[in-house]
Amino acid sequence: MVQYKLSNIDRVAAAISDPTRRAIIERLARGPARISDVAKPFPMSLTGFCKHVRVLERAGLVRRTRRGRDNTLRLSPRPLHDVARWVLKYEQYWKTRLDKLEEFFASQKEEIR
Amino acid sequence: MVQYKLSNIDRVAAAISDPTRRAIIERLARGPARISDVAKPFPMSLTGFCKHVRVLERAGLVRRTRRGRDNTLRLSPRPLHDVARWVLKYEQYWKTRLDKLEEFFASQKEEIR
Repeated sequence: MVQYKLSNIDRVAAAISDPTRRAIIERLARGPARISDVAKPFPMSLTGFCKHVRVLERAGLVRRTRRGRDNTLRLSPRPLHDVARWVLKYEQYWKTRLDKLEEFFASQKEEIR
Repeated sequence: MVQYKLSNIDRVAAAISDPTRRAIIERLARGPARISDVAKPFPMSLTGFCKHVRVLERAGLVRRTRRGRDNTLRLSPRPLHDVARWVLKYEQYWKTRLDKLEEFFASQKEEIR
């Protein structure tokens, strides 16, 4: 039986599967900003925008600081590390396969000579 | 206005956000296998299992070869590369921040001396 390990990858990968949420991360990578300023360029209501921010908060990718009326958002990219680590295992597998294909074609060339 | 670039990251990140689908990828990284063999250890119906396989196929992560009655599945990890590339940009950002914090604490220690 397959055993599932508890993992934050579920929430983080789901969070970055949406282009709006990736754009928010890209914006916050340039520095912390007020939520109203971050929301401005997005073609949606502030309510819709805040739903995306909450998904990012639950994944641990964005932190919110309440200060008076407005909130400041800042990037917390640490959880991306787990996704990177998982993905890079298969990146390695893919490279190994390419190396093997290269070897194979090299040996074919040798045989033709 | 935020412009969205067309991206396969949406589908790939959504595909790997599920532990069953990550376990299928992990199984197929050990080599191609018949769908019924891959399905066996999973605590779900074959119909439920095949839905997960279809999500992986649509993301370009799994290829299916039909041979007689049974299908063979093989891993196609290439699309993971796009997710890895996107994530690693922020991995870099995170490292830079850590370096800056380290510098800051080092300078504080200098001042205390």
